[in-house]
Amino acid sequence: MQLGATCLEGGRCEFLVWAPSCREVSLHQVAPRDRILPMERQPRGYWRLMAEDMPPGARYFYRLDGERDRPDPASHYQPEGVHGPSQIVDHQRFSWSDQGWRGCALADLVIYELHVGAFTNAGTFDAMIERLPVLRELGITAIELMPVAQFPGERNWGYDGVQPFAVQHSYGGPEGLKRLVDACHREGLAVVLDVVYNHLGPEGNYLWDFGPYFTDRYRTPWGDAINFDGACSDEVRRYFLQNALHWFRNYHIDVLRLDAVHAIRDFSATTFLQELAEQTREFSLGNQRTCLLIAESDLNDPRVIRPAELGGYGLDAQWSDDFHHALHCLITGEALGYYGDFGNVGDLVKTYREGFAYAWRYSSFRKCRHGASAADRPAQQFVVCSQNHDQVGNRMNGERLIALAGFEAAKLAAAAVLLSPYVPLLFMGEEYGEENPFPYFVSFEDAELIAAVRRGRKEEFEDFHAAGEPPDPQSPRTFAAARLDWSKRDQPRHRAMLAFYRELLRLRRANPVLARRDNNQLEGWGLEDEKLLWLRRWNEQAEVWILAN
Amino acid sequence: MQLGATCLEGGRCEFLVWAPSCREVSLHQVAPRDRILPMERQPRGYWRLMAEDMPPGARYFYRLDGERDRPDPASHYQPEGVHGPSQIVDHQRFSWSDQGWRGCALADLVIYELHVGAFTNAGTFDAMIERLPVLRELGITAIELMPVAQFPGERNWGYDGVQPFAVQHSYGGPEGLKRLVDACHREGLAVVLDVVYNHLGPEGNYLWDFGPYFTDRYRTPWGDAINFDGACSDEVRRYFLQNALHWFRNYHIDVLRLDAVHAIRDFSATTFLQELAEQTREFSLGNQRTCLLIAESDLNDPRVIRPAELGGYGLDAQWSDDFHHALHCLITGEALGYYGDFGNVGDLVKTYREGFAYAWRYSSFRKCRHGASAADRPAQQFVVCSQNHDQVGNRMNGERLIALAGFEAAKLAAAAVLLSPYVPLLFMGEEYGEENPFPYFVSFEDAELIAAVRRGRKEEFEDFHAAGEPPDPQSPRTFAAARLDWSKRDQPRHRAMLAFYRELLRLRRANPVLARRDNNQLEGWGLEDEKLLWLRRWNEQAEVWILAN
Repeated sequence: MQLGATCLEGGRCEFLVWAPSCREVSLHQVAPRDRILPMERQPRGYWRLMAEDMPPGARYFYRLDGERDRPDPASHYQPEGVHGPSQIVDHQRFSWSDQGWRGCALADLVIYELHVGAFTNAGTFDAMIERLPVLRELGITAIELMPVAQFPGERNWGYDGVQPFAVQHSYGGPEGLKRLVDACHREGLAVVLDVVYNHLGPEGNYLWDFGPYFTDRYRTPWGDAINFDGACSDEVRRYFLQNALHWFRNYHIDVLRLDAVHAIRDFSATTFLQELAEQTREFSLGNQRTCLLIAESDLNDPRVIRPAELGGYGLDAQWSDDFHHALHCLITGEALGYYGDFGNVGDLVKTYREGFAYAWRYSSFRKCRHGASAADRPAQQFVVCSQNHDQVGNRMNGERLIALAGFEAAKLAAAAVLLSPYVPLLFMGEEYGEENPFPYFVSFEDAELIAAVRRGRKEEFEDFHAAGEPPDPQSPRTFAAARLDWSKRDQPRHRAMLAFYRELLRLRRANPVLARRDNNQLEGWGLEDEKLLWLRRWNEQAEVWILAN
Repeated sequence: MQLGATCLEGGRCEFLVWAPSCREVSLHQVAPRDRILPMERQPRGYWRLMAEDMPPGARYFYRLDGERDRPDPASHYQPEGVHGPSQIVDHQRFSWSDQGWRGCALADLVIYELHVGAFTNAGTFDAMIERLPVLRELGITAIELMPVAQFPGERNWGYDGVQPFAVQHSYGGPEGLKRLVDACHREGLAVVLDVVYNHLGPEGNYLWDFGPYFTDRYRTPWGDAINFDGACSDEVRRYFLQNALHWFRNYHIDVLRLDAVHAIRDFSATTFLQELAEQTREFSLGNQRTCLLIAESDLNDPRVIRPAELGGYGLDAQWSDDFHHALHCLITGEALGYYGDFGNVGDLVKTYREGFAYAWRYSSFRKCRHGASAADRPAQQFVVCSQNHDQVGNRMNGERLIALAGFEAAKLAAAAVLLSPYVPLLFMGEEYGEENPFPYFVSFEDAELIAAVRRGRKEEFEDFHAAGEPPDPQSPRTFAAARLDWSKRDQPRHRAMLAFYRELLRLRRANPVLARRDNNQLEGWGLEDEKLLWLRRWNEQAEVWILAN
């Protein structure tokens, strides 16, 4: 029961859509010819059609109740954008060259997060391919793509996606992504894809017309929550579970990074995340390829990464925001907003030892106790960074760490991350000390929405910034400012930074103590007044002392 | 830091109230004299006052922002009802006679659920005392009081309580409850108290004036959820945690029955229920007295009763609704509403074996899969019944099982419950075959609310009942109809039923196989067409066969 359009032999195509809110559903083919084919009602609100003469490349809408043409909720391609018709993709056609690829073990991940649109001047998957050798030589083992699911317009961080199965047309669509992943695997690089299962974007979200994908029982920062535990939630879950497997199967993605799992409101006895972890594990075993799930979570809840036997959801790893915040505050001295909870060397030591600094401790920012101890979890289950798209881009001006704290401080931060026992994540450009900002950008079409986003952006920064106007998120110039400047890599200072990163990554691989993902054989002390941190890591034969100030 | 009024030596009294929403809080004493005493602001929104010459029995309001007089959110007594002043209670004054009482082990519980107002003609705690020997002789080991926290008016099931620390004045207030609990313990009976931590009633809820006790991030059937995981939730939690300990400490309550824990919306890494379980265990150990927590939960989620080491919340036991529904449907043949999910002998067999029939299986009523396997949980962690206040009273006319299915069927149901390996719960009167209904009743003062409840009641039964009007919940006659008729116990048929219950309870204690709380040494088979159920239970020496039709 594959949702969406599935190409079969002889030019046939099977369509399946969940639309329990509709009395009648038809397929409205719009290219290469125009015709309407009635669909057959199935149990539990599904509608099915086996269509003849429906080749890959054909474009279609679903016509709901004989009235409204809507793109396929499980569309694999939206060549004309979020409001346009869906296009049939035949995933058998691509010839993969990565037959020998078996994925990358969690402990071996060194992640490089990037935005497809801003990573190169062309802003496409194909343009990225020639840059891969540089990343491999640096010592990266995986690239992480910010979300590529179809979003409104051509510029967006990706968290406003509304067709979770479709690959953004302006990046190069399905074929482009496949060529990129194939090239990564040829280079020995794994691919992490950021997927958003906690909300849909505000423009082009037609799911409301199909069925109860959302629930008003929970509110999230983005409005009504996705219905993961109410009536009809089996079908909503199937949609997102198939989405995960879609990326693993059709695009050979190695790791899914799950955006903001704390906004996946789910009180059921068997949670969606548990199901997702089980199905991912099953797929991984069945395909003899390492497929992993890494969560972004604001909960500091070890349940997210504990195995099911211990009452957990069984995800493989999660980001440690505490590590970032503790490091960031020591380096920048910032104390506004959530940074007010950090600033002690002791907090950073604690994250080195246990993953979280807040393990059921009072947070002034949250105004309540926060978190639980994750000291029982192995080090490889935590992903740490000194900056990422969120921490950079959620600032009013999108300043990177180097712009805030300078060159030497950026080196210190790099060492703090790369000599940690955790899985490190770099944000594109930091490896050569890129100073360009990474501001928030969108390209909506709806004028009201654009105004609301501009307004929201200003309101958001009342807490963080005393004065100044945030850059206009809708402006192409704001997006253009985010682009990496590849020419910098040849300039002396930037070359020095690059060499420093390369050396740190080499050390991390070559030194037997540093190569271990182990925070038990690690101890640390801090002098708060001097902002001095010692770390001692060891194994049976050797030890490494790290002194940071 | 005790919330509310704490009597100290020399006529002094300490007041503590959490009122972060207020700029100014005073104590307005109204009896025995009238005076206003300003309170002192404390960290985190608390207000404190040490008052001289403030004896037990004194009555007071908190005056908020110099404007509004409000009863104490942690009032121990509301002698004039929910809108009146709070009264100071000195818990040291009661002379307890239960020094040797150590509580009742979970496995030994045989619970008798009752409504204080309807159990006797007088409807008070004191009137109950003379009935206790009869319950003890029957073989009951614990009475369970439907909620006694102060509710509006004089007649209410108890789930509309608004002063969770106060004891309903019309039942006899704090002293009355203490006399009852003391008498129970003298009779060797434990006391289970039903407490509601998932919502407050609709009339007399003044918590909104004090602080963010509620959150709009979650919706419950009763409106905004209580704020267990947002900003200021530490203080909200403290309120309910102190409430639990208040009953254990000041009233010698043995077990708290937590109403509808599925409506305690809490996504924090360390949940309120975990904290509650930890503090209860601590109190229990510190006082060398068994104090327990039993949850009502609609989730079929074994996390509720798994220990913290296995990722659970660590409550001691929970009700198995599935057992009730499976049994009820076999006996009555009913299939409306949630009963549509049941009706197979196989479901009942499964609940005998594993506690839940729905362990991640599709429920037509819920329109999604439901539950998770609890097969790893010991039998004593499940409470089962053939009827309870909810299952009887939530029917339009409040019919008991005997009124629906007759005398012989009621006997069968009794055996099904009492010969199970689980903790049995009887609903008052079923032991002698009471036919009086237990309809839903209230006694609100607010005319709009009364109209809304009447309307709501009618709407609720569109699904369950084709025709007929539900009894008026506000009418005193509806309440009067719920009273037990104690004279029936002397009538032959009722005497026969009583003897049957007594014999079942004797067998359950005396027979070494039946005395075990063990659903591993149990197997069962069903013939669906014949509605025939076999159960085999055994131990090392003997076995018992139970055949039911």
